[in-house]
Amino acid sequence: MTSPDRAGEKKDKLLFTPGPLTTSSTVKEAMLRDLGSRDTAFIAAIETIRNSLLGLAGLSREKGYECALMQGSGTFGVESVIGSAVPPGGKLLVVINGAYGERMLKIAGVLGIECEALRCGENTKTDPDAVASRLDADGSITTVAIVHCETTTGIINPVEETGALVRERGKTYIVDAMSSFGAVALDLEKAKVDFLVSSANKCIEGVPGFSFAICRGEELARCEGQARSLSLDLFAQWKGLESNGQFRFTPPTHTILAFEKALEELAEEGGVAGRAARYSGNYDTLVAGMGALGFKEYLPREDQGYIITSFRYPTHPAFDFTEFYTRLSEKDLVIYPGKVSDADCFRIGNIGRIEQNDVKNLLAAIASVLEEMGIESGA
Amino acid sequence: MTSPDRAGEKKDKLLFTPGPLTTSSTVKEAMLRDLGSRDTAFIAAIETIRNSLLGLAGLSREKGYECALMQGSGTFGVESVIGSAVPPGGKLLVVINGAYGERMLKIAGVLGIECEALRCGENTKTDPDAVASRLDADGSITTVAIVHCETTTGIINPVEETGALVRERGKTYIVDAMSSFGAVALDLEKAKVDFLVSSANKCIEGVPGFSFAICRGEELARCEGQARSLSLDLFAQWKGLESNGQFRFTPPTHTILAFEKALEELAEEGGVAGRAARYSGNYDTLVAGMGALGFKEYLPREDQGYIITSFRYPTHPAFDFTEFYTRLSEKDLVIYPGKVSDADCFRIGNIGRIEQNDVKNLLAAIASVLEEMGIESGA
Repeated sequence: MTSPDRAGEKKDKLLFTPGPLTTSSTVKEAMLRDLGSRDTAFIAAIETIRNSLLGLAGLSREKGYECALMQGSGTFGVESVIGSAVPPGGKLLVVINGAYGERMLKIAGVLGIECEALRCGENTKTDPDAVASRLDADGSITTVAIVHCETTTGIINPVEETGALVRERGKTYIVDAMSSFGAVALDLEKAKVDFLVSSANKCIEGVPGFSFAICRGEELARCEGQARSLSLDLFAQWKGLESNGQFRFTPPTHTILAFEKALEELAEEGGVAGRAARYSGNYDTLVAGMGALGFKEYLPREDQGYIITSFRYPTHPAFDFTEFYTRLSEKDLVIYPGKVSDADCFRIGNIGRIEQNDVKNLLAAIASVLEEMGIESGA
Repeated sequence: MTSPDRAGEKKDKLLFTPGPLTTSSTVKEAMLRDLGSRDTAFIAAIETIRNSLLGLAGLSREKGYECALMQGSGTFGVESVIGSAVPPGGKLLVVINGAYGERMLKIAGVLGIECEALRCGENTKTDPDAVASRLDADGSITTVAIVHCETTTGIINPVEETGALVRERGKTYIVDAMSSFGAVALDLEKAKVDFLVSSANKCIEGVPGFSFAICRGEELARCEGQARSLSLDLFAQWKGLESNGQFRFTPPTHTILAFEKALEELAEEGGVAGRAARYSGNYDTLVAGMGALGFKEYLPREDQGYIITSFRYPTHPAFDFTEFYTRLSEKDLVIYPGKVSDADCFRIGNIGRIEQNDVKNLLAAIASVLEEMGIESGA
């Protein structure tokens, strides 16, 4: 065994991104084991994870909810849910105000599922009443999909209000909570969510490699035999986990062990409320500091979540994003390019193993980079 | 940072399985980093991996071959290749002598691809001439799929002879080399392989989390727009890697870093030949020792590869597999249940970070477990 300081030799940059994120060293150290996929300790880890995820959502099996883990990134998880939950001949309405809504529409299209978009501007929250009207106008829609925190901008959509209207109309409701689950409170029962999808490497602060779905049992049962894929069959995956506690196909054992540790650390931090407090603290420090440097946020403050923030490029002619990004990266601080289609933005994430002091260091570095670039202000 | 001996506190069992496998501690330690998905070091790791995989196959881009990495277990990789390579209206012939052949057939069925099985017994190598006859009899077949080392038994199928006959007939040829690639020499040009699929956690001794495909460029180009899935679109995944060196969707960063290290260690061991030597040494020691204990192999010796071996249950009435397995597992030695459909077998794998001394220790433990169970001989 080499020295643990070995990892220290290569100091990693801090990731102010939507993920993969900076994780704790203890989460990464949980991967220093090789467990067989049928090992009782490994099967116990899967079981603990599934129950903890339900617990994080304030749910349980007794309340009629189930949890399945699915290999691959969040997109694999979303495809698994869409491909399994929309019945043959069904129609999906995707509520869109950013790239991740567009991605769900694309998934449905590739799968040959009839689908329709309900779009609004990327700088606007989605409108629950517009969803209701669309459902009232088109009885053939069976399923509605929406993004909770649209990582394109950081906007938080009205998932609860929308869910109530969807359930009233007897439709199935899919929520992509990729970048919010674990740090933004969401009452799945109140929001009438049938399928929620999220990923190991977002607010729970595991490492990337799998996603998961929290499902209303009644709706999950209807998915049997509906999937458009063997690998991404959500029902079969859940059924496999139920029958012997194992994945159907070779599981990402190391990533699973890291996630078990990450869930422990989330509980130690005080669960969703504790993590929300740290991330909001990061966010408050960030927007105050960026404001003082003259940067403008893309979204109105009241629509903005504390997960990730889009900032407009400064108008100063000397500003060049690649140079700005590179100079920060050379200081071991990694920000993220923008994804908004109608404005030049970059993004800064507040999630992962990041504290307010890290954000303050980032702000100081941004101030010094602006100076190096001969820019007086981020405005 | 906690002490490195921390990992030592929980001593892991040795895995004599088809995977996940025992890996080196240095491969696992490569995961003690958090790299962003756009990090230049991470993008360089992906590029190194893709080139090394082509190199392991004796190929290169200059020779017209390409490599794509795909998230998920080997099955995800196989589904990605089948779902991308079989053209619309195409027909797949699956050559089957075990569970992994059956799985390819099942994948095609779920994807709505017309398909047909050419089966022989699980204890028999597949027959190249039978494939040729089937192709001659049914001109509508566009694609042929076969398993190189069928992990169900450990048999090695005649992939080269079959490939020559498939190419002569102008058909596309898919080879599942999951449990052989990296340790069983296979000349892809000679074998006329269009798509070879394998996984990170087999003979290359990485950790599980992704698979990869080595593709003849000409055939890969034909896959554009053909995939039945967004996540599992092989062409789009390759195109994404080509365009900016990145995965289309959040990559399993830690698993990728482990794999980069595993490839380095494979090269240090002497590449495919070096690894083949170690695994065959393990195999020779295993079958000699098991034979001395009275165990019978399921396959004729000449069809058996050195990857994994199926042994028949002893006929002694006191033999109970669960007890046998559990007693070995309590000694920190993990073997694997059988998968043969017409005989009671268990399996012992020779792959992963396992040396001949480990095999000798396993043999000694098996002898002592037989004694504990009151069984004179494994016969």
